[in-house]
Amino acid sequence: MLKLKITLAYDGTSYAGWQIQPAAHGPTIQGVVAAALTRLTGEKIIPVAAGRTDAGVHARGQVISFATLSRIPVARWPLALNSVLPQDIAALAAEVVPAAFHARYSARWKWYRYTILNSSQPDVFGRYYSWQVRHPLDFAAMRQGAACLMGQHDFSSFCAAGSPVRHHVREIYTAELSRQGDLIYLDLAANGFLYHMVRIIAGTLVAIGRGSLGAADMPSILAACCRQKAGPTAPARGLCLEKVAY
Amino acid sequence: MLKLKITLAYDGTSYAGWQIQPAAHGPTIQGVVAAALTRLTGEKIIPVAAGRTDAGVHARGQVISFATLSRIPVARWPLALNSVLPQDIAALAAEVVPAAFHARYSARWKWYRYTILNSSQPDVFGRYYSWQVRHPLDFAAMRQGAACLMGQHDFSSFCAAGSPVRHHVREIYTAELSRQGDLIYLDLAANGFLYHMVRIIAGTLVAIGRGSLGAADMPSILAACCRQKAGPTAPARGLCLEKVAY
Repeated sequence: MLKLKITLAYDGTSYAGWQIQPAAHGPTIQGVVAAALTRLTGEKIIPVAAGRTDAGVHARGQVISFATLSRIPVARWPLALNSVLPQDIAALAAEVVPAAFHARYSARWKWYRYTILNSSQPDVFGRYYSWQVRHPLDFAAMRQGAACLMGQHDFSSFCAAGSPVRHHVREIYTAELSRQGDLIYLDLAANGFLYHMVRIIAGTLVAIGRGSLGAADMPSILAACCRQKAGPTAPARGLCLEKVAY
Repeated sequence: MLKLKITLAYDGTSYAGWQIQPAAHGPTIQGVVAAALTRLTGEKIIPVAAGRTDAGVHARGQVISFATLSRIPVARWPLALNSVLPQDIAALAAEVVPAAFHARYSARWKWYRYTILNSSQPDVFGRYYSWQVRHPLDFAAMRQGAACLMGQHDFSSFCAAGSPVRHHVREIYTAELSRQGDLIYLDLAANGFLYHMVRIIAGTLVAIGRGSLGAADMPSILAACCRQKAGPTAPARGLCLEKVAY
């Protein structure tokens, strides 16, 4: 039995998220990857992922792990897997890891990027990969607001209702905003993320950028530990899981 | 009666090209834009385009022209049109032009970009916007081959069979290859393009990059005026109409 760690990229547009769901919700990344693994190995394999991305969320560096009896040489795994995966999911790298490795529990930090298109002009090529905000945004204020999130906090204000998780303390290592033309990137790296956390942070920063909230409000939004104090949840399509570190 | 010139961007993935076709081939950009114009103005308007892009070919700067009795202020045209266009077609700019203006016949030059992904790793986000070539490519040789195309030539070797055009002499003003990570961009600007010309040039340059043709063969391929001497036709998805100049 070998434990494998595989890095995946996917365009989440056509999927009901990572996690296997009742068929009514449509295909999931986990379901499609599991089927590909079974086709390749003849074994029944349900992979676990570092981040259980929502419907419409993308990944450039999702990490999955699973055990297999397969004798496919590890260097050939990406090519073999890509030959049975659809074009919107790709295996980028594979390595053998210790049996105790778990894609989610072993992760030290994850990096998500949220992309905002700040323009009145739509971008036909980015329509599934960014959130278009037509209103002018105060970039400096957004940056200031983002900086308040650095460090260890109770992020209850940035956690969607219905999350089963009890402890809401996480540590953010990077909270950076950068700008490239009309695009604004929010890069967040943390030791863990709550349900919808990046999207609520993105929605709150846009509210700050539009002036409906102030950057100076950020500490009290955090302190309130109350979802209602933060801004709206930004749409899934702007979100991408960039990298997971172990 | 006003003559309008509108700049469009579109993702050509879901369309049977620009030109209206029998319904069996699926929707066309021209058909969808015509329907949007009719919805907006109540008039029957069939726009003409600078470049009649093929199925799967994209545009960042397609230009269309048409006459209208509409009193929509010209500055409001892009927003108005976008409100009735699907998300994969967008109006970027509008201006009033002299009655004699014709999007195709008035064009001085057009700029097309062909994108090659030179990697063994697929790019899930670029799968509809680039041609993946897994084989290593000799970039310097490709660049040398491209340079031979500059200037005025008979491009019959780079024209697909079945083209109704009689005269095959065109002038290429720019024939540049550039590299950004795994992406290779071929930028071609010319006073006109023959049927499949950019895609046959891209296919020929990739053949040079792989070594099945030499950069030194390019002058004789041109001189032969014979489609069989050039390389294969590169896939439509890598092609994008970037800009049209008047």
